Amino acid sequence: MTEKLVLHEFSLSGNCYKVRLTAALVGIELERREYDLMKGETRTPEFLATVSANGRIPVLQVGDRFIPESDAACHYLADGSKLIPADRFDHADMLRWMFWEQYNHEPNIATLRFWMRWAGLDKLTEAQRLQIPPKRQAGNAALRLMDDHLKGRDWFVGDAIGLADVCLFAYTHVADEADFDLELYPEVIRWMEQIMTLPNFLPMEA
Amino acid sequence: MTEKLVLHEFSLSGNCYKVRLTAALVGIELERREYDLMKGETRTPEFLATVSANGRIPVLQVGDRFIPESDAACHYLADGSKLIPADRFDHADMLRWMFWEQYNHEPNIATLRFWMRWAGLDKLTEAQRLQIPPKRQAGNAALRLMDDHLKGRDWFVGDAIGLADVCLFAYTHVADEADFDLELYPEVIRWMEQIMTLPNFLPMEA
Repeated sequence: MTEKLVLHEFSLSGNCYKVRLTAALVGIELERREYDLMKGETRTPEFLATVSANGRIPVLQVGDRFIPESDAACHYLADGSKLIPADRFDHADMLRWMFWEQYNHEPNIATLRFWMRWAGLDKLTEAQRLQIPPKRQAGNAALRLMDDHLKGRDWFVGDAIGLADVCLFAYTHVADEADFDLELYPEVIRWMEQIMTLPNFLPMEA
Repeated sequence: MTEKLVLHEFSLSGNCYKVRLTAALVGIELERREYDLMKGETRTPEFLATVSANGRIPVLQVGDRFIPESDAACHYLADGSKLIPADRFDHADMLRWMFWEQYNHEPNIATLRFWMRWAGLDKLTEAQRLQIPPKRQAGNAALRLMDDHLKGRDWFVGDAIGLADVCLFAYTHVADEADFDLELYPEVIRWMEQIMTLPNFLPMEA
């Protein structure tokens, strides 16, 4: 990897942490640039014109090119490593969990965490407030599906850690910050402990 | 491809159409099995136990194994074809658009289309009804971002059609069914016409 790699991020976002954890597990160094979401620093004209027209982080900068979307950035970093299975079915199955995370897990668990920890429940619109119960239900359904899948398995795909595990770990391990009770999901706790005891594990706050 | 391929689908879903269009473009035959979403046919105990615990379609069956998530199924079918760029950056950039579609495009445009065409606006919950204006705004922002990206380019990634184009085309070309005015996005119209005139193009209703 000869081009400069810069992660444009808000470090306590699980989506940004995914990218740092992937880099740590494959032994790649990233420069880091922090943005304050609460001050709208990812919606400035300069950010939109140069880093990402979508106004969101993380964005992985590779030389003078940019990769928005956390899972795409993880795929770039892990390409050619053991985190991405070589087998055609397993590669697709890994992506299946990554797409599932972004559609069924993140919009529920990460959004509730963001509302509770940063935005403030008293600042929500009526439309957002009414979404709390369905997001709570869907977040628990996502954790239940993960727990069921992990019965009798150590990792989400095949018999080794891969990007599916990294990407699912990011928001799952802080789901308690959105008042999800992880004790209800013992297989998820066992799987998280496996990840947190990896020799090259990187904590979110590092 | 020696194993039997079966697409478990609701054929007018754009997510299911993506998988059929990918198969057509790479010359793969799929068996098809239709489910009636309105009758809850993807939430039966049998479906949840054998096809997908997530209770959603499409699911691509490969022999006796299953790949849920439309974009993962497309990746499986297109693996090794020209629809997936060999270059590491371009592969990640293709996935970036696919993840963006599932997070910023589909939950707005496809959900409004589903509510208007199948569920019925008068049947929505209050929480859903209040989401109509933000989804309308976010759907138009997604189409605007696509239109801006296509200025001076023929395809989303590199200089040839790829999975990013296929996956974005699926719900974009029926956005008018959710009352989005595609005439506002002339680059998107030009790009859609390129896809619809491909020799091996497959229409949604085929």
